[in-house]
Amino acid sequence: MPKLRFRISMSVDGFVAGPDQSVENPLGIGGESLHEWVFPLRYWREMQGMPGGEVNASDQFLRDSHANIGATIMGRNMFGGHPGPWKATNPWTGWWGKNPPYHRPVFVITHHPREPLRLEGGNTFNFVTDGIESALEQARRVAGDKDVEFVGGATVANEYLEAGLIDAMDLSVAPILLGGGARMFDGVGDALGQFALERTIAEPKVTHYRFVRR
Amino acid sequence: MPKLRFRISMSVDGFVAGPDQSVENPLGIGGESLHEWVFPLRYWREMQGMPGGEVNASDQFLRDSHANIGATIMGRNMFGGHPGPWKATNPWTGWWGKNPPYHRPVFVITHHPREPLRLEGGNTFNFVTDGIESALEQARRVAGDKDVEFVGGATVANEYLEAGLIDAMDLSVAPILLGGGARMFDGVGDALGQFALERTIAEPKVTHYRFVRR
Repeated sequence: MPKLRFRISMSVDGFVAGPDQSVENPLGIGGESLHEWVFPLRYWREMQGMPGGEVNASDQFLRDSHANIGATIMGRNMFGGHPGPWKATNPWTGWWGKNPPYHRPVFVITHHPREPLRLEGGNTFNFVTDGIESALEQARRVAGDKDVEFVGGATVANEYLEAGLIDAMDLSVAPILLGGGARMFDGVGDALGQFALERTIAEPKVTHYRFVRR
Repeated sequence: MPKLRFRISMSVDGFVAGPDQSVENPLGIGGESLHEWVFPLRYWREMQGMPGGEVNASDQFLRDSHANIGATIMGRNMFGGHPGPWKATNPWTGWWGKNPPYHRPVFVITHHPREPLRLEGGNTFNFVTDGIESALEQARRVAGDKDVEFVGGATVANEYLEAGLIDAMDLSVAPILLGGGARMFDGVGDALGQFALERTIAEPKVTHYRFVRR
């Protein structure tokens, strides 16, 4: 049975973005440090069309995290741009330029309806206004035999966790303190009792945890 | 200049005790798993008067965490027993039996005055009712040239952090999710920007972070 897999980078103090997120600073103050562990890795460089890169346990973890995914779900804040209704002219098209790194259908959970946005490289962003369960259903339908990934942010993550819909979590903890921002695991409570640790990969610059539903 | 050093074990989701703490279950549901990494270590076994134990990077980290300490500060909830005024007869004397593991003056931050409690092995518990700064001042006075350690719990930790009084933090993150309980780093905000990572020790069963004031 295909799974809903959640992957995210988090600070030691539990934030997945720093304070004061904005269009200019989408990850908030200090938030870019959450992802520093990714950039030297061969898998990351491959995705950017660059040669070389480190091949280590983090590289393998990242590769596994991205394998066998047929559809992606994200919250509106992660798709980004601005809060509220979409602009009628030149609406926000995401952070990723003309050819985003997903290359598959993406489902954006939002309160504001919008026609699908088709970008290059097989990236189609669908805007779902009837909630997290509907987004999952639509994503599963297009993913077929493959898994669905959910990539954040924290608000929608906590909703999916509370609803008991996440089957597996890849948490990559960067050795930083952000002090504020988008807090993971807020009000999630008993839902986390469903998870068991499957593996840990501990490296100086990042610790990865894979939790799976018991 | 002697420092105020804070050491604590935390879950991946940021709790230093699980939900539903009680006299019977002082660390809350699942909270005992926070400390499992400690028990196999030689330093821990030495402190209990037992031979053997693992000598590894965690053992050295624990040993360093406990070195050069002249006084200990803790919150009332960590000293434990029950909330509210101390019982007049047979008042609570802590979790640790007749000979607690501190062997130095301990300062307990509480709203409820009480005479000092002298136990075996040089363990004297002093009850401080005029706040975290007073406790630190009193602890520094008895510690002399040595550092003062603060050992939790979360509520007082967040107060010390917010006040900018912590000089160094040893965080040991256990690969577990507690889902609720005593949350570290709640409302601490900008105070965490004062810290820089000094070292990380990453092991499969625990990741240690030492943060020091910049």
